[in-house]
Amino acid sequence: MPRANPNLLVQSLRGASQVFFMENAATGVLFFAAMAYASSVSGNWATTIGAAVGVGVATLTARLLECDEASVSSGLYGFNGILVGAALPTFIAASPQLWVSIVIGAAVSTVLTAAFSATLTDKWGIPGSTGPFVLTGWLMVAAAYSFGRLQVTGDAPRLAGDLVRGAAGIPAPMDLVAIFFRNIAQVYLLGSAVSGAILLAGILIASVPAGIAAVAGSLISLVVAIAMGADPSAVSQGLYGFSPVLTAMAVGVIFLTPSPRVAAYAALATVMTVFVQGALDVMVAPAGIPSFTAPYVLTMYLFIAPKRLMAPHPHAPVADHMVGNGTPAHSAGTAR
Amino acid sequence: MPRANPNLLVQSLRGASQVFFMENAATGVLFFAAMAYASSVSGNWATTIGAAVGVGVATLTARLLECDEASVSSGLYGFNGILVGAALPTFIAASPQLWVSIVIGAAVSTVLTAAFSATLTDKWGIPGSTGPFVLTGWLMVAAAYSFGRLQVTGDAPRLAGDLVRGAAGIPAPMDLVAIFFRNIAQVYLLGSAVSGAILLAGILIASVPAGIAAVAGSLISLVVAIAMGADPSAVSQGLYGFSPVLTAMAVGVIFLTPSPRVAAYAALATVMTVFVQGALDVMVAPAGIPSFTAPYVLTMYLFIAPKRLMAPHPHAPVADHMVGNGTPAHSAGTAR
Amino acid sequence: MPRANPNLLVQSLRGASQVFFMENAATGVLFFAAMAYASSVSGNWATTIGAAVGVGVATLTARLLECDEASVSSGLYGFNGILVGAALPTFIAASPQLWVSIVIGAAVSTVLTAAFSATLTDKWGIPGSTGPFVLTGWLMVAAAYSFGRLQVTGDAPRLAGDLVRGAAGIPAPMDLVAIFFRNIAQVYLLGSAVSGAILLAGILIASVPAGIAAVAGSLISLVVAIAMGADPSAVSQGLYGFSPVLTAMAVGVIFLTPSPRVAAYAALATVMTVFVQGALDVMVAPAGIPSFTAPYVLTMYLFIAPKRLMAPHPHAPVADHMVGNGTPAHSAGTAR
Repeated sequence: MPRANPNLLVQSLRGASQVFFMENAATGVLFFAAMAYASSVSGNWATTIGAAVGVGVATLTARLLECDEASVSSGLYGFNGILVGAALPTFIAASPQLWVSIVIGAAVSTVLTAAFSATLTDKWGIPGSTGPFVLTGWLMVAAAYSFGRLQVTGDAPRLAGDLVRGAAGIPAPMDLVAIFFRNIAQVYLLGSAVSGAILLAGILIASVPAGIAAVAGSLISLVVAIAMGADPSAVSQGLYGFSPVLTAMAVGVIFLTPSPRVAAYAALATVMTVFVQGALDVMVAPAGIPSFTAPYVLTMYLFIAPKRLMAPHPHAPVADHMVGNGTPAHSAGTAR
Repeated sequence: MPRANPNLLVQSLRGASQVFFMENAATGVLFFAAMAYASSVSGNWATTIGAAVGVGVATLTARLLECDEASVSSGLYGFNGILVGAALPTFIAASPQLWVSIVIGAAVSTVLTAAFSATLTDKWGIPGSTGPFVLTGWLMVAAAYSFGRLQVTGDAPRLAGDLVRGAAGIPAPMDLVAIFFRNIAQVYLLGSAVSGAILLAGILIASVPAGIAAVAGSLISLVVAIAMGADPSAVSQGLYGFSPVLTAMAVGVIFLTPSPRVAAYAALATVMTVFVQGALDVMVAPAGIPSFTAPYVLTMYLFIAPKRLMAPHPHAPVADHMVGNGTPAHSAGTAR
Repeated sequence: MPRANPNLLVQSLRGASQVFFMENAATGVLFFAAMAYASSVSGNWATTIGAAVGVGVATLTARLLECDEASVSSGLYGFNGILVGAALPTFIAASPQLWVSIVIGAAVSTVLTAAFSATLTDKWGIPGSTGPFVLTGWLMVAAAYSFGRLQVTGDAPRLAGDLVRGAAGIPAPMDLVAIFFRNIAQVYLLGSAVSGAILLAGILIASVPAGIAAVAGSLISLVVAIAMGADPSAVSQGLYGFSPVLTAMAVGVIFLTPSPRVAAYAALATVMTVFVQGALDVMVAPAGIPSFTAPYVLTMYLFIAPKRLMAPHPHAPVADHMVGNGTPAHSAGTAR
């Protein structure tokens, strides 16, 4: 792969593609096309411009901090920044302070990417993925409630009991098709089925197995969300599907080597992600923040953490404890 | 210990006994008797059946995932599943979707047990214990608020200021005896003093020191909760005692080698667990979820983490930092 | 440094100075003078007495637990206890149970200091700093809502939408000077500008660079908080400045070796701390607890975690995963 010092534009386009685990500048171009299409429909261009600013600032920050060069070239220091840049204008009204927040948030997302890498990844083998975006996004949106110069649009802190619970039902076939694509579009916080189709095309030109996993994730989430009676409005917007799409791709294809066994494991993870989506929506409501991709991030971390042959702690005394007497009742060998 | 390929029933009964840190199928039988007694009193058999399903599914999942065989045999992959299976029907009304949730939650609890083992235990020497149950239980109960096909009974998201604060007083002697046993029963989410007595008998046939620690934990929590003026209704149901009972056993007997010094340390941990119970009840109230055994889990993690001879970071520059200049002002040897 | 077995008084005074990263008994004396001055103005002496009790109990607990002797001598096991002792009487009305809580909280803060050291510091190179104080303080204040014998003064659990949002404006020059010093005073939960000046003097007699960083942190936070339109009442009390002051000192001088590059990095961290302050105020409001120094702690952890040359996970399969087939598609060498 030609990683030797590509320019900031190529690195940024690769960063755009890394949101779906790809490293492909052409895919990144398609992803920006999907965002631009959604902006042209909604009339809110701040999201697309914010994404461009976010991935540029994040990647530039990584270069200034002299982060691992191969990683910067691959766009791995850009995908959290692009999501910060796309998310903040989605939830905060445009103002000079919004753009300051995007620049700071994107720069900080690079620091967090390095921090997650040095802790989760280096010591536990867990990829940070979009965890830095989730944390940065939560902090910036929550902060907006405290800052008079930032205006959060739509949501507000509330208890989940205040959530309207619609009557459950099965959407019409054409609606199901639209939801299927919106499940993919919402990874980029887009509500457009057409954008979802463009994103899926972008994934497929980079990796067919990854595209298949995305399709499977969208379908599984659709079935589970409807079967459990999730809020039809949220289901319709694709809000129950984007995290499961990422989980299916990450656990089924990207971080584990594909096999029938891994497929079953990824299916369980994908189903669980729908439950985690329902749970986190309730848990973060009092703070007035969106759950972002946290359902994917939490589920993926937990499903990737286990290692082969790892034995749990067998309830034996811990050796070398501060207040222990140094001679555990059972052998220290089994104590870990 | 006869660990060579026992059947699923024996592994599941051992899993039941591991809730109180034991590895004893006979103890597991007594524990199921305690649950059945409480079900016969309350008329809610879904909790006992859920427990059976939970421990079976969790153990079977561990076998399918080829988790460490000795651990599976010991029941260490079953005790989180049994608690998930007992807890969900306690807080969610019966429906086909409830049983789907129990099966998924129990299977996921096994993945989380492996995940906690590979991170907390393997790298930090901290046993995962019932942490996977707490996390799985929180996610499934919170999700129920989002799902029209799951109905949470009783609780709802609220702010702690809405909690009724009863006038504090000292219960009558016979009430104190009942609370003493309920403190043990609530580890299995049971409100019956008789069930508590059966559980204590089950612990004592497996380990007398563990039984003594359970007794001490129940007594300490009773004194502290009354002295601090905790809600008399919650105290009466044993809700201030079950986590301290587990802390006293875990810190005093199971994970550290018993000694007078360790007993004093465990007493401090047990007292603190009562405070953490009061705190977490307030903190999780906005999400509408029970604190489960989180007060025990958090306190135990924090009291087991310290290792002998571990020096804290002496405020010296961190060597090898990304933006440092590579030559720390103080020696790197003391910087960690 | 004369660390050989100084008495408890000297160790406690050093512990007081460690709140600002110093190891200097004379600085500790000045810090107690700053607290006493604020108590004489407010009439609430429980905070100063609580601080003395807290640092004494925490240090004594460390000696009883035989924690690392050099660390105990340096006061590193005292600074969390002094903050617990100062904070609890600030938020909880005086009663015998308050003093019990202070003693237990201070003793537990020592266990948590050892726990953070054995996990964050030992494995990830992240200093625990005032993290143990934040966690202990949160648990004790939240518990007070559950305990009839502890009365939380002022605050109560609420949603952030209930927060009054004042019109933003630029304070008068003399007010700016007072806020500048209150930003430093609030590190010790003091609202007095005079106390802030005494604290700054104490820092300067121990370290001029640390004092300069404190000044810079206070100034940066003032500019950012006003520019973002933060609640003028909170800004005026110094509540938007104390965490940034600590971040500027920690990231700019204490934990990284000072350089122009590190100064820029610390400036970004300091700016971010103001956002995190705004965010955490919203996030912890439903639990009715103050954010304490959590904005500093969270930001500092994240900015100190990255290590030089650390590559993030390149989205390749994880080797040795429980359900993987043992032959990752990409080389294991790049998988971490």
